[in-house]
Parts: sequence; C-alpha cells; structure tokens
Amino acid sequence: MPSASKSSKLNRQESLFQYVLQVGDNALINGQRLSEWCGHGPVLEQDIAITNIALDQVGQARSWLQYAAELEGKGRSEDDLAYLRPEFEYRNVLLLEQPNTDWAYTIVRQFLFDVFNYHLHSELKKSTDAGVAAIAEKSHKEITYHLRYSSEWMIRLGDGTELSHQKMQSALDDLWMYSGELTEMNELDAAMAKEGIGPDLEAIKPQYDARVEAILSQATLKKPEASFVQTGGKSGRHTEYMGFILAEMQSLQRQMPGLKW
Amino acid sequence: MPSASKSSKLNRQESLFQYVLQVGDNALINGQRLSEWCGHGPVLEQDIAITNIALDQVGQARSWLQYAAELEGKGRSEDDLAYLRPEFEYRNVLLLEQPNTDWAYTIVRQFLFDVFNYHLHSELKKSTDAGVAAIAEKSHKEITYHLRYSSEWMIRLGDGTELSHQKMQSALDDLWMYSGELTEMNELDAAMAKEGIGPDLEAIKPQYDARVEAILSQATLKKPEASFVQTGGKSGRHTEYMGFILAEMQSLQRQMPGLKW
Repeated sequence: MPSASKSSKLNRQESLFQYVLQVGDNALINGQRLSEWCGHGPVLEQDIAITNIALDQVGQARSWLQYAAELEGKGRSEDDLAYLRPEFEYRNVLLLEQPNTDWAYTIVRQFLFDVFNYHLHSELKKSTDAGVAAIAEKSHKEITYHLRYSSEWMIRLGDGTELSHQKMQSALDDLWMYSGELTEMNELDAAMAKEGIGPDLEAIKPQYDARVEAILSQATLKKPEASFVQTGGKSGRHTEYMGFILAEMQSLQRQMPGLKW
Repeated sequence: MPSASKSSKLNRQESLFQYVLQVGDNALINGQRLSEWCGHGPVLEQDIAITNIALDQVGQARSWLQYAAELEGKGRSEDDLAYLRPEFEYRNVLLLEQPNTDWAYTIVRQFLFDVFNYHLHSELKKSTDAGVAAIAEKSHKEITYHLRYSSEWMIRLGDGTELSHQKMQSALDDLWMYSGELTEMNELDAAMAKEGIGPDLEAIKPQYDARVEAILSQATLKKPEASFVQTGGKSGRHTEYMGFILAEMQSLQRQMPGLKW
C-alpha cells in the first residue's frame, strides 16, 4: 500500500508537471508568434497593442514554466524549459504555431484561441491545486482583455469593407481545422479533470462554440463546415512551422547559454 | 511689422515641429532596435524587461509624433510620420541606429542614451510649451526606470566575470564615438533653448558626463579616450544601418497602407 500510494503520488506530480507545461506552452508559443509583429507596424497603436498581448503571454508562460520547473524538481529553470526542450516535448496546440501571414490570420488565430483560453482559465482559477489556481487567477484578467481585443477586431474587419471581409473569411476557413484541438480531451486532461485540477473540456466545448458563433455572426462571417480536425500538438506532434519557431527562439540561448559570460 | 511677426510665428511652429520630431525619432528608433530582442530571449525575464522598454519607447514615440502631426497641420498622421518619411527626415541620433550586436552592446547603447534622455526629460518637463511639458512629464517616469535598469546591467556585467567585463569594455569602446552627438547643440536646440521650450544642452553635458563616469567607475569600466565624435543623425545624415531599420519598419505599412482593406 505505501508503495502504491507513493507511485500514485509520483504520477500525480508528473501529470501535473505535464499539464502545467501544456498550459504554459500555449502561452509561450502564442507570445512568440505575436512578438514577430513587434516593431513591424503596420500602425503604431496596433503594434503597441499586439506587443502588449505578446508580453502578457510571455509573462504567463514564465509563471507556468517556473511552476513546472519547481514541480519537476530536477534543477531545470524556466528558461531551460522555454528554450532547451526538443520539439516533441512542447505541448502547445497546432493553431498557435500557424504563421501570422497577415493581420486577418493573426486576429482569427488569436480570437479562436482567446475564447478557449478565457473559458479554460475561468475554470483553472477554481483548481484544487493552489499553484495552478494562483497563476490562472492572475492570467485571467489579461486574457479577458485579449478576448475583448480580438473579438472587436473580428467584428471590425469581418463586418468592414468587402476586401477586409473576404480576407477574414479566408483566414477563418484556413484556420478552422486547427480549432478542434483546443477543446479535445486527451488522457492528461481527463486525469486532471478527475482530480479537480483542470476542467472537463467537454463541458467547455458548448460555451466555446456558443461564444465563437455569436462573434462570427456579429462579424458577418460564415462558420466553416465541420472538417477534419488537425490535432497532435498537445502530444508533441507538431506542424512544420514549429521547427522554425524553436530555431528562432533558441538561437540566442544556444549562443549565450544563461548569459553566463 | 504684422508680416514679420507672422513669419516669426510660422518659424516657431515649424521649429517646434522639427524639435518634437527630434525627440520622438529617438524614441521611435530606440524602440524599434530594442524590439528586435522581442521573443529572442536569451532569458525570459530579460526578454520581457527589454520588450517593456521597447514598448515604452514606441508609446512615447507615438505621443511625440501625434503632437508633431498636430503641429504640422498638413493632415499627416503619427503613422505617416513614423513609417512614411524618407530617411533624411528622421532626426534620431546615430547611437540609436547602431545594431544590437549582443547583450553588451545593447546595454551600453541603452545606458549612454538613457543618461542623456533622463536629463533631457527632466528639463523638458519644465518646457514653456504645454504640449512638450505634458509628454515629457509622462515619459520621465518611464525613462527613470530605463536608466535604473541599464545602469544596473552596466555594473553587473562590467563588474562581473572577466569575459563579461571584456565584452562590455569593447562595446563601450566601439560606441563611445556616438555619445558626443547626444549633448551636441544644433541650431534647432539653440532656438528652442532661447524660447524656453527645450534645455541648453551645454548645461546638461556636465551632468551627463558626471553620471556616466560614476556608473563606469562602479562598473570598473575604463572611460574611452576622447575620440572623433560621429554626428549628423540630428540633421538627417544617418549611418548605413538606418536604411535597414526603415526597410524593416516600413515593409508592412507599405504592404497594407493604413490597414485599409
């Protein structure tokens, strides 16, 4: 019995570590992608706004990865986790790896993610794990703002000019197949839901769908037909874009390990 | 007499416009250069900190360029001024165009600028022009933090390991010739000082030198020998780096003019 209980405790700790990485990696990769806009306009106001969102996301990633490092207890720091893992250990969803392409793609990607992230964090705030609840509580305020921002842009551009509408619809059609992974339960999600650490994603899905549909309707955008769902990111199977993101992210860390000169 | 007075009033307005651009362009180009670190580590904490400084600078640039656009009164927006001027109309100092190179160069460049910028804004807060005083007041708080940040890094790395000291000294030696332009009075500075709009830079120079020397001494760095002062940025004569910065900054604005699709 003591050994079984110990092993179950270890498993919980290991699962929690992986789960915290899963939430943190979404923030990390989203922050990384958005930061590519930083200093690239096209309008000072939006450059500042999107960079602020990128910064929020990198800040949240830092909190999650610090906590993950603590849970792992093997002496790796949040920077080791952020910069020095092999690709298959990153657990972010595929949606967030997709390139910025243009402002329409960036907004659609951000919106589809923000809706999920908002509902996820509303639940994580009530986590039975105090560490998770605390980070979620702090992040939730920022995510609420992100969702408001991306929703407003969905409507402004979807219900804008003919050209802006066209571009938004086409971005939505292209990215839609990546949205299913957000609310897809994997084994880890199920284990965490059972412990009250994370939410049941099946319960979040109807809220997700309703919120997305409401905004699409205001934006006069057509919800794409259900299509094949692209999935695998949460298990470490990434699209071809992930390698480029990591190469970019890791280049400096590998040149100047830990800034230790 | 009325016509002479009118012409002098126009000249004041035009000079003020150019002066506001001069202050704003420093913030714009500094923000742009720092934003290249955004999402490139090497350490999450510093990535966040330097991106925050970049954002402060872009935000300040926006305020100055909005005010400049208003003063000009020709219907150009702050984005037109930020993104759509030819190179010779940018009035930033040459120091801020210099590439990031590595963390040592970035910190030395930032420190040399922050000391000047801090003293400049301490005076601009007292400007006889209410618009200038208001923007300076708000910016001064941020710049005070920037100066504290770059000063701490100067000391930490200058008085760090043998290698970090070496890299800092070499960055300082290379960038030193660009520091003279900061406190160099041009005709515009002189005209603005006469009107009480901007400070007499000759009066700022001793404060600048004293502050730089105090930190260099704490950082165990050797003040470089007085050398030829590289100058010209404030008059629109830039180094070869400026073209690349503008190409990068302007690429999206030219692709998606005013996001008007």
